[in-house]
Amino acid sequence: MTSALACTTFAGVQTLTAIKPEARCQELKLELPPAPKPAGVYQPILIVGNLAYVSGHGPLKPDRTLITGRVGADLDLAAGKQAARQTGLAILATLQEHLGSLDRVKRVIKILGMVNSTAEFTEHPAVINGCSELFRDVWGAADGIGARSAVGMASLPANIAVEIEAIFELA
Amino acid sequence: MTSALACTTFAGVQTLTAIKPEARCQELKLELPPAPKPAGVYQPILIVGNLAYVSGHGPLKPDRTLITGRVGADLDLAAGKQAARQTGLAILATLQEHLGSLDRVKRVIKILGMVNSTAEFTEHPAVINGCSELFRDVWGAADGIGARSAVGMASLPANIAVEIEAIFELA
Amino acid sequence: MTSALACTTFAGVQTLTAIKPEARCQELKLELPPAPKPAGVYQPILIVGNLAYVSGHGPLKPDRTLITGRVGADLDLAAGKQAARQTGLAILATLQEHLGSLDRVKRVIKILGMVNSTAEFTEHPAVINGCSELFRDVWGAADGIGARSAVGMASLPANIAVEIEAIFELA
Repeated sequence: MTSALACTTFAGVQTLTAIKPEARCQELKLELPPAPKPAGVYQPILIVGNLAYVSGHGPLKPDRTLITGRVGADLDLAAGKQAARQTGLAILATLQEHLGSLDRVKRVIKILGMVNSTAEFTEHPAVINGCSELFRDVWGAADGIGARSAVGMASLPANIAVEIEAIFELA
Repeated sequence: MTSALACTTFAGVQTLTAIKPEARCQELKLELPPAPKPAGVYQPILIVGNLAYVSGHGPLKPDRTLITGRVGADLDLAAGKQAARQTGLAILATLQEHLGSLDRVKRVIKILGMVNSTAEFTEHPAVINGCSELFRDVWGAADGIGARSAVGMASLPANIAVEIEAIFELA
Repeated sequence: MTSALACTTFAGVQTLTAIKPEARCQELKLELPPAPKPAGVYQPILIVGNLAYVSGHGPLKPDRTLITGRVGADLDLAAGKQAARQTGLAILATLQEHLGSLDRVKRVIKILGMVNSTAEFTEHPAVINGCSELFRDVWGAADGIGARSAVGMASLPANIAVEIEAIFELA
């Protein structure tokens, strides 16, 4: 106990960044959906070297249903952002299931955020922030914020509101 | 002859996974189109380290024409899946042409499958399976199935039905 | 002066490829926009190993406005190509700002060129050439032309005409 307290006092700022993703998930009381099964002939995640390529995920909820609809028509910005956050939670579930622990993920390299949107919709970055803010909260600002594109798709599988693929660096 | 037979008998299951992609192509009687020429200022394939980045390919046929049309309107699911398979064959042609042999490719890392589809279309994974099943057949289930996203585009070059880009790991 | 001339005479073709990107930018009299600020929770560029992942960029002009509109409706092919070139200039600005110098970039690995286009548009490769020709001019044909996909999106952030993400190899 004494040494732990000493460590906290001594390490200061360093301690903040040393919080592990799994501990952060508990702290944030995140409820992950079940890790999604592939919807076709692909693997949810594939590791090459120190990189994990995560397949396109959708907004899978704990009850195994998906958030569907077109942002700008069926869903407003807030609902779209919530769908992006839910997609991020599904990605966390895949990482946890296939790697054993989120602590094996060192940082976010890149996400491609694809919004099922009307032709007139223009706020894709604000939608995809739903996922990006989640990752920032789980890995911290230094490791949780990677490169990103946020764009609008004509249609998505099963009419899901958002699909996100990602690359992570492993520890 | 004797030693080859002995090898087959002895190696057992191992022999199954040891079948090389080029031999599998012959076994599957695949007819590859000519390796596509770039349609703009890009290289069909670029190698960095042990990864080969393959540019977006379309469903090029042996007679050098392309399968065109929008899936969900001009093409049904089966025709779209066939277009994705043809796109996979074009990717195989590029790999063979630029690497000398498919045997230099160890495994599939990731594909991005983009379907020229109506706003109402929802079966992108089933379409892109046309390519994924081909790669699984050529490299086997362990090495031929990578990460994947399957999504719907507003439009594609020359109105092709499918465009697929890919990353492979070299042996 | 004498030694420079001697070098030029002696090295011949080799001299052409040895021109550094920063020098080429000056030679081409390129006017870069200010390096764009992130439009959401992401980093404009992230480095892992010897690769730089560049986030989706838009056609940012030196006056900090963006080229907007749908190609095939609001913008014609020439205007769309100009938007892709401007997007390439914005990417150069990001590379210069975050790496200190374009000379740290060895070559282009891959770009994903996304055109805000009508459903009927078919000339995405010619649009994205606006960026690809710029990169070819800056890094030369051997290092400036990478793998590429060029596709049509339903919509893009702030209604920008083009969004491009890229991967570069660092020297």
